[in-house]
Amino acid sequence: MKVIVYGLGEMGKRMAERILASDALDLVGAIDIDPQKVGRDVGELLGRSPIGVTVEDNAEKVLTDHPGAFVVHTTVSQLEKAAPQILQILETGHSGVSTTEELSYPWVRHPDLARKLDTVAKERQRTFVGTGVNPGFLMDYFPAVVAALSSGIQSITVRRYVNASLRRKPLQAKIGSGLTPMEFKRLFDEGKMGHVGLVESAQLLARLLQWEIKDLKETCDPIVANETVQTEFFKVEPGFVRGMRHQVKAVDTRGRTIHLDLLMALDHPEQYDEVEIEGTPPVRVRFPEGVHGDMATVNVTLSVLRRVPDLPPGLLNMADLPLPIPV
Amino acid sequence: MKVIVYGLGEMGKRMAERILASDALDLVGAIDIDPQKVGRDVGELLGRSPIGVTVEDNAEKVLTDHPGAFVVHTTVSQLEKAAPQILQILETGHSGVSTTEELSYPWVRHPDLARKLDTVAKERQRTFVGTGVNPGFLMDYFPAVVAALSSGIQSITVRRYVNASLRRKPLQAKIGSGLTPMEFKRLFDEGKMGHVGLVESAQLLARLLQWEIKDLKETCDPIVANETVQTEFFKVEPGFVRGMRHQVKAVDTRGRTIHLDLLMALDHPEQYDEVEIEGTPPVRVRFPEGVHGDMATVNVTLSVLRRVPDLPPGLLNMADLPLPIPV
Repeated sequence: MKVIVYGLGEMGKRMAERILASDALDLVGAIDIDPQKVGRDVGELLGRSPIGVTVEDNAEKVLTDHPGAFVVHTTVSQLEKAAPQILQILETGHSGVSTTEELSYPWVRHPDLARKLDTVAKERQRTFVGTGVNPGFLMDYFPAVVAALSSGIQSITVRRYVNASLRRKPLQAKIGSGLTPMEFKRLFDEGKMGHVGLVESAQLLARLLQWEIKDLKETCDPIVANETVQTEFFKVEPGFVRGMRHQVKAVDTRGRTIHLDLLMALDHPEQYDEVEIEGTPPVRVRFPEGVHGDMATVNVTLSVLRRVPDLPPGLLNMADLPLPIPV
Repeated sequence: MKVIVYGLGEMGKRMAERILASDALDLVGAIDIDPQKVGRDVGELLGRSPIGVTVEDNAEKVLTDHPGAFVVHTTVSQLEKAAPQILQILETGHSGVSTTEELSYPWVRHPDLARKLDTVAKERQRTFVGTGVNPGFLMDYFPAVVAALSSGIQSITVRRYVNASLRRKPLQAKIGSGLTPMEFKRLFDEGKMGHVGLVESAQLLARLLQWEIKDLKETCDPIVANETVQTEFFKVEPGFVRGMRHQVKAVDTRGRTIHLDLLMALDHPEQYDEVEIEGTPPVRVRFPEGVHGDMATVNVTLSVLRRVPDLPPGLLNMADLPLPIPV
């Protein structure tokens, strides 16, 4: 499969690395608007020898230069910002995948945009899938897979506990490291703090279970340092924020509950992913070492990309496809 | 969905129980040839009040009496024995699912039979899916889901360790409890011992990963009691068999390996299911309490059944469908 990477931020660069390492995928184009990147060879940008693919800022040109290539889109979290890019991808005749968090299940928060993208994809007979690891896999798709082992399910709880000290700077910043608890709460209220996509995960999981959500509550609380925390990027004094606990509790029309519990904090002693199902029988499954979000996002996204040629046209999500195919 | 249960052995009875408990499924017919069961009300057979559905031995009649009903087929492990029943199901116009172990991936061991069933299903525009928990989920489908989190995978190991003392009599018998090690080995060589479907699991997992198996080795060793083991059904003296360890090691054309390790033994101290992937990154996931096979088989099978109306016609397996929908 010929592949164009659309967006060469931290995630896009990792996508490019993995595509270059894969026999199944062939990198043919790269799009980014960052003046520091435009005009450079992708190999060079990754700190390796040139590969003959140059980063270009003219998306239209790259897309039309490579008919038949599939697009890996990884630019922004918000669908409103991503939609014009995705429309262009579809209108130039390409199928692809995107890590735009709000695209993992866009039908509740952005029904009009979702319908528009779906219509254009169908008109052009192209397939576009919103995916990623969180949202898109760990707190929605994976629990839905595990749920098949149980029946008469009353509740599904998904815990993702991450020691953010082991992660890169943008993640440490995103969880509010170094803020005062007041600043943290204000930013969350303004929609500038918290994990984009947690609500979408609950909606996608409900869709996969064929539950209809009646009520959904979202909370995001700062985790405050009791002693000084020092990472490569941040020094957090006692009383300041070292992380966040973002939760969604959804109840369906029959009283069944989905509880997503995402805790990411510097120096957090526990790191694991876990699904716990109350049903017949109860089921519990755990990744005892956790799942590395960045690497897993790249892998899931490219695994889904490999499935795209088999899929019907339209704007799809993880509820619509047979299993991803590992790269 | 209207449902006919075809086969009312231990598994079929559990299917009927779960169907009766589900709002999404409606039991309308029951087929079994056991004279002890024929003519009895299914509810009564389950030790509850009558439900107005009688067990009948005339499959043709039950099938033609309920056009539009979906069939849950659970009679035998071997496809050669199951095939005439499945043909009749398809020819009377029904779609359905089956727990016949060899149907979980029939294309290697029984390519002609698989092709025949697939052809008839397509002619009749009906869908029939081979499924179950093992084979069909725990040692094939589930590891393939987890594999999407990794990349450049070199090996996948799946361990299923079951303390058979906690399970029903047929399972305790199936693992060779009370035999001499010599008898055990002779029976395995005659194809009468070991877990039916372990090879199919490896083939299904390879199919899901899009790996091509080059070499496959199957071993089945008795686990011998060092001290007397006593269960509700068996007393095993030292030197006699208390269980088995059935393994498949498959290597693909690029040297990547699948290792399935199924250990079921009386008084076994460890009970868990685990997937371990060597790749980038390595991934490990575990059901710390294990997964109850009988209950999970019922749940997975009925979850797959709920997906059947969305699927294209043909003889399908777990590689062909979006996620099951829990009952």
